[in-house]
Amino acid sequence: MEEIEKKNVRKNPVENQILVIFGSNGDLAKRKLMPAIFQLYLDNLLPENFIVIGAGSQEKSEEINRTDVTKAMLEFAKESAEANPDKLQSFLEHTYYQKVNNQEFEDFGNLKNYIDHLSATLDIPKNIIYYFSIPPFLYEVVAANLIKYGLNTEEDGWKRIIVEKPFGYSYETAIDLDTKLRSGFNEDQIYRIDHYLGKETVQNIMVTRFSNGFFEPIWNRKYVDRVEITASEKIGVAGRGGYYDTSGAMRDMIQNHLLQVLAVVAMEPPSIFDSESIRNESVKVLQSLRPIKSTEINQNVVRGQYIETMVDDVIQKGYRQEKDVAPNSKTETFVALRVFVDNWRWGDVPFYIRTGKQLPEHVTEVVIHLKPAPHQLFKQRCVAQSTNMIILRISPDAGVAVDFGMKIPGAGYKVQNVNMAFHYSDLASNKISEAYERLLLDCMIGDSTLYARADAVKASWKFVDPIIHAWKSNSDIPLYFYECNTWGPKEANALFGNKELKWRAPFKKFKTE
Amino acid sequence: MEEIEKKNVRKNPVENQILVIFGSNGDLAKRKLMPAIFQLYLDNLLPENFIVIGAGSQEKSEEINRTDVTKAMLEFAKESAEANPDKLQSFLEHTYYQKVNNQEFEDFGNLKNYIDHLSATLDIPKNIIYYFSIPPFLYEVVAANLIKYGLNTEEDGWKRIIVEKPFGYSYETAIDLDTKLRSGFNEDQIYRIDHYLGKETVQNIMVTRFSNGFFEPIWNRKYVDRVEITASEKIGVAGRGGYYDTSGAMRDMIQNHLLQVLAVVAMEPPSIFDSESIRNESVKVLQSLRPIKSTEINQNVVRGQYIETMVDDVIQKGYRQEKDVAPNSKTETFVALRVFVDNWRWGDVPFYIRTGKQLPEHVTEVVIHLKPAPHQLFKQRCVAQSTNMIILRISPDAGVAVDFGMKIPGAGYKVQNVNMAFHYSDLASNKISEAYERLLLDCMIGDSTLYARADAVKASWKFVDPIIHAWKSNSDIPLYFYECNTWGPKEANALFGNKELKWRAPFKKFKTE
Repeated sequence: MEEIEKKNVRKNPVENQILVIFGSNGDLAKRKLMPAIFQLYLDNLLPENFIVIGAGSQEKSEEINRTDVTKAMLEFAKESAEANPDKLQSFLEHTYYQKVNNQEFEDFGNLKNYIDHLSATLDIPKNIIYYFSIPPFLYEVVAANLIKYGLNTEEDGWKRIIVEKPFGYSYETAIDLDTKLRSGFNEDQIYRIDHYLGKETVQNIMVTRFSNGFFEPIWNRKYVDRVEITASEKIGVAGRGGYYDTSGAMRDMIQNHLLQVLAVVAMEPPSIFDSESIRNESVKVLQSLRPIKSTEINQNVVRGQYIETMVDDVIQKGYRQEKDVAPNSKTETFVALRVFVDNWRWGDVPFYIRTGKQLPEHVTEVVIHLKPAPHQLFKQRCVAQSTNMIILRISPDAGVAVDFGMKIPGAGYKVQNVNMAFHYSDLASNKISEAYERLLLDCMIGDSTLYARADAVKASWKFVDPIIHAWKSNSDIPLYFYECNTWGPKEANALFGNKELKWRAPFKKFKTE
Repeated sequence: MEEIEKKNVRKNPVENQILVIFGSNGDLAKRKLMPAIFQLYLDNLLPENFIVIGAGSQEKSEEINRTDVTKAMLEFAKESAEANPDKLQSFLEHTYYQKVNNQEFEDFGNLKNYIDHLSATLDIPKNIIYYFSIPPFLYEVVAANLIKYGLNTEEDGWKRIIVEKPFGYSYETAIDLDTKLRSGFNEDQIYRIDHYLGKETVQNIMVTRFSNGFFEPIWNRKYVDRVEITASEKIGVAGRGGYYDTSGAMRDMIQNHLLQVLAVVAMEPPSIFDSESIRNESVKVLQSLRPIKSTEINQNVVRGQYIETMVDDVIQKGYRQEKDVAPNSKTETFVALRVFVDNWRWGDVPFYIRTGKQLPEHVTEVVIHLKPAPHQLFKQRCVAQSTNMIILRISPDAGVAVDFGMKIPGAGYKVQNVNMAFHYSDLASNKISEAYERLLLDCMIGDSTLYARADAVKASWKFVDPIIHAWKSNSDIPLYFYECNTWGPKEANALFGNKELKWRAPFKKFKTE
């Protein structure tokens, strides 16, 4: 208990360690991981003895690699890099490179030797994080190769692996992948990244709920009418058509990110604030999701795909016109669904989740709609769409807002909905760190709170799998087309089963991108 | 019911009527009443046939009176008067004057004749409001004179009287005054003004509570730790020493205004939103106030008096140095008290009320302090003063705010208190009318919601009387002296009975005067 608290306030130092990035020449490594590590370095959060070993299929020297890192920093961490040229130089001395073709068994032998060498020369214990910044189909082979060379053994230091989403492609493949990883790594060595959980505001949902006497009393079926979770993107698939066409919005956003957000919103208070307790509670939510039967798909799920649209005198490509997308693709770029959490707290409260591409705004937010007051003393008030709301804005312009009725000045008792908001950017120490910085640092100290646990991954696949399967097998289930720069197919409103209700546009007190 | 609703939305027209102001040459009439009537006139809220008859002891012609009204408007309704010179001219045509010495019986005969004359000439029914803008000791005699001349009879039109505070000087005198008024007027003809209840934000407390599903669930002993009500004034007695020295803060502020505010904060939802239902509920709160025994005064009430102080290099007079104040006066200019509302909703929740003169800021606000979350997951948080608060700001900068804990960006789960606020001035139609406009208009249409009912007046006297009596009879009860521009005697903090608690300075998200 004492230990755990210390961990939470991050009093324990980060141990000396080695970070190996597979796929170090890829986009994610250059855009997100290396800038995050550099920022941690600038913030003095890295341990004294720390190195990053880039592992990529390309053959290149340490010098070339450092030139590449420098280039990446000047492009993707521009401000920090230009402001701290000396620091960038000294940071480069922590970066190394080893050519590793992920499917070449021998290359892992070379990697092992290089690690042994660097560990000995630089006096770094073999505490190693292996970051799988590679296509998902390679996870298994890289894990197998690591295991074969004993690079997973913890006799000479701890070993952790970080895998990116998607973790599996379906319920079965997720279990299969898990089994393969588990043949050489324990659950507590596996960090399944969900960068949504690394977002400050997602974490803040827990703080908002559990450190205040204010929200929790109404956070249940007695007072909550429904919950809306929206994650909208303004862009289309933007060059990722090949990946996206085999994935779709359900796998790309719902199965991982948005069901995790739902879990954080709906979970019971953990007994203590440590990784296992929190994840124990969030998995219970995912396991309580009411399965959507194949016969009930149409009432509970709406899928859509964007079509060619003229927006501001510019033609926006339709999804099927995107590069690497099948011209008759039925892949969904929009999903709206209604789901119930079958437990005591949330029985019969619908959770509405919506995500899509080519929507009017880029925004992620959770809206808790409260039930109207039990007795409407002030009859002038429109009930349907104007009940109280608590808005948890995740991005952009993170914050919390409350929407409620106030008296309009003057005679009588006319009520108008007004709102008050807290913007995270108002905080004195308002530097909101990037999700990857937070997540990397958490893994370095062994805190897996914000990583998805295998049972949670499985539970969410178990929920979405039958829907994906029904879409594939039942051609009667409609795919609705929608124009770019709209909020998706209008059929999404039918999920409310009440003509007076519809999806909310993002909350106006916040800025949207 | 249908009628009542219509009344609440003020659909019923204001009937043609006559307003007689006793004490029309006095300060209140010139500063507040006439400007309020002029504003109602500008807003087209007065009926077509409407006149004001000034009644004062001074002998003067209609012309002189209209010149006096013009002067008063140019001084106390400057902006409106200067912007609407034509309207001011036409408004004057609605003003009349009759010399009435309140203690001269015959003068009321003249008044009756003049009313008869004007009513006939101008074709106005004898719907009459008598506004008692006169010293309280004259209420009885004016009422008696009106009754003697039959000016109270409703055969030829309704009659209403508006009396200003203080309504009585003690429990007994209040009952006595009530009996005398009731000898000629029914309860529904008597409007006891409490300009606090006319304030938008006091009314808004009801709307905030009863039109939202958000606040009411936590508005009870289960979630509320304590309530603070503060009404502070920056000024001293400012020329009103003669009146104030016989009154004191308890009679001047607590007995009427602040106990009424407490009643609005604490009351149960009324069954319907009409005057009698609301007042039925608020009087129940006042009747539930736990009496403070004479032996428990010191633990529950602190009285203070300001002393001469150097503030910003200027000497501020002490209370005893003020004009018309006895040099050894023990009159309190500051009161802080703890009171309990003994009912199911509020059992054992302390309400702290504080008022005083020569304090650092001019502000009236209610602070609902919530209990801390039942389990403190985030240990770094200081509990004592940093629990959640709901702030209802009455004046200035009226609004609502919520203070709660949020996660500080960065690693770990450090919690910081932040707040969000709604400022009434943000409302699109943000003209907040003066309390007197609202109250006059209410009386004109016969809505007594915002006027104090006799039973409420009696209940609040019943509560404060024993305290005032104890102060007078027991010289052991200390009168604490405090310096100007401080928040009163430090002994006021002892009421919390908890060294970690103290009175809050007004909420920082709001502007103070």
